[in-house]
Amino acid sequence: MSIYSKVWTQHGLVDRDSLTYPFEERGLQFGDGIYEVVRVYQGEFHLLFEHVERLFRSAEAIKIHLPFDKQQTMEYLLDLLKVNDVSEDAKVYLQVTRGSAARDHVFPEVNANLYTYVQKLSRPIANLKNGVSVITLPDVRWQNCYIKSLNLLPNVLAKQEAKELGCFEAILHRDGLVTECSASNVYMAKDGAIYTHPETNHILHGCVRLKLKDLANQLGIPFIQEAFTVEQLHNADEIFLSSSTAEVMPIVKIDRKTVETGEPGKITTQLQKAFESDINIKDSLFTAQI
Amino acid sequence: MSIYSKVWTQHGLVDRDSLTYPFEERGLQFGDGIYEVVRVYQGEFHLLFEHVERLFRSAEAIKIHLPFDKQQTMEYLLDLLKVNDVSEDAKVYLQVTRGSAARDHVFPEVNANLYTYVQKLSRPIANLKNGVSVITLPDVRWQNCYIKSLNLLPNVLAKQEAKELGCFEAILHRDGLVTECSASNVYMAKDGAIYTHPETNHILHGCVRLKLKDLANQLGIPFIQEAFTVEQLHNADEIFLSSSTAEVMPIVKIDRKTVETGEPGKITTQLQKAFESDINIKDSLFTAQI
Repeated sequence: MSIYSKVWTQHGLVDRDSLTYPFEERGLQFGDGIYEVVRVYQGEFHLLFEHVERLFRSAEAIKIHLPFDKQQTMEYLLDLLKVNDVSEDAKVYLQVTRGSAARDHVFPEVNANLYTYVQKLSRPIANLKNGVSVITLPDVRWQNCYIKSLNLLPNVLAKQEAKELGCFEAILHRDGLVTECSASNVYMAKDGAIYTHPETNHILHGCVRLKLKDLANQLGIPFIQEAFTVEQLHNADEIFLSSSTAEVMPIVKIDRKTVETGEPGKITTQLQKAFESDINIKDSLFTAQI
Repeated sequence: MSIYSKVWTQHGLVDRDSLTYPFEERGLQFGDGIYEVVRVYQGEFHLLFEHVERLFRSAEAIKIHLPFDKQQTMEYLLDLLKVNDVSEDAKVYLQVTRGSAARDHVFPEVNANLYTYVQKLSRPIANLKNGVSVITLPDVRWQNCYIKSLNLLPNVLAKQEAKELGCFEAILHRDGLVTECSASNVYMAKDGAIYTHPETNHILHGCVRLKLKDLANQLGIPFIQEAFTVEQLHNADEIFLSSSTAEVMPIVKIDRKTVETGEPGKITTQLQKAFESDINIKDSLFTAQI
């Protein structure tokens, strides 16, 4: 199994194989919880502070009381890498639910359940080099997509629909405007500028998205937070998406139509290079053999 | 514990206390599943066929393959009451998830997980006699509320907000139109007719709602499936809600404002009586002491 043996829970470290949940659990019955996926490169967290900040924002939004403060959370996560002796590329999945209680919509008087595991994860080198295909779909999700909640059924269905059409992701649009993908943020480049949906309640405020804003600024590329239409997207010079596991992923085909040359674009590649400098890894995707 | 000891799962009957879930479960990580709550009066199911029909509609909508057909499901559920020797008022909670698998949005190649338990549940006599208070809130849920899915976080938050204001339920409105409550359908009576939101993707197609349509027809009360505004609701002659556990529940206060006389209205009471005849129980709420 690619999950490391030690899992962090509200009761401290437990063995992966001994962790089970009761059937009356708020996560299992209501999706009443939140989560984070944090990237680890060569044993080191990337954007840890940003992820922990967002975890606490999500918890506050749905009124889950976390049993740790931000500083403690970071310490526990760093410790989790240490006890598992993680030195390679990985991701950390952290989930908090409102707890175990007899089924009732209203909040129970119980403590939150938490678990966090580390899983081996290589960089998606081939996709990062060649780019991926996507489809567009209506965004049928709820109004509060800025909360990283466990209510992911519409995301699951969109991603599955993409997969069945041989695509990596589904780009979602609400009221004619592109929001984000089922599990990543999306961007287009047009006439030398990057466009992406503003940080409203309709998109997840991505940690990599935040980093890309910085990197674009450093590169002198305008980073314009304005919503655009599916039609504008179809006429973009470049399209790419970002997430903690997908990094800066070029999109070379959308709705079966090739984006420009069908190769990752210039701005996308610039951002990929800047991102690689930021994560400070020894093997670049630009020199990797695939 | 008010849950009967035998629980039905995809592996047959298991003991309540031995049923646990792995931490990598689609229900727990994505809310990737569906459920039903079926009412039992004096050991007999009410509207069992309708609930099973809806379960299969929900499963089809999110592409979960159920390991039983409708006839088998009904037989298993009837058997569950028998093995637990249920003779009193209860509810049956049935949940199906896409299964246990390593976390990935796309569908895994695994079988569905299912569990069903029976829980003692008395009729809410005091509320049925006196009526309840409600608030109104924006409906922030996804577009496919006709699917009875485990993605219930917005419902949980709405119900909790109602409770914190001393209310029983929250009536939701989308684009100015009343849809339903966080865990029940809602109706208003005006000038001798009943109004309720049509059976679109924006509401759950309630089994009790279906029954009330029949009963209204039998009573000669027009049952008009048209959406109405919050303002129209505030000016209704009567308001009530329905669900499998709340039955036909009068609403006597909305947004702190008394509905008409503050007593359950005439049409509401007629429906309550007709509903009682339908469930064929020996003790009527109209003769019960509270």
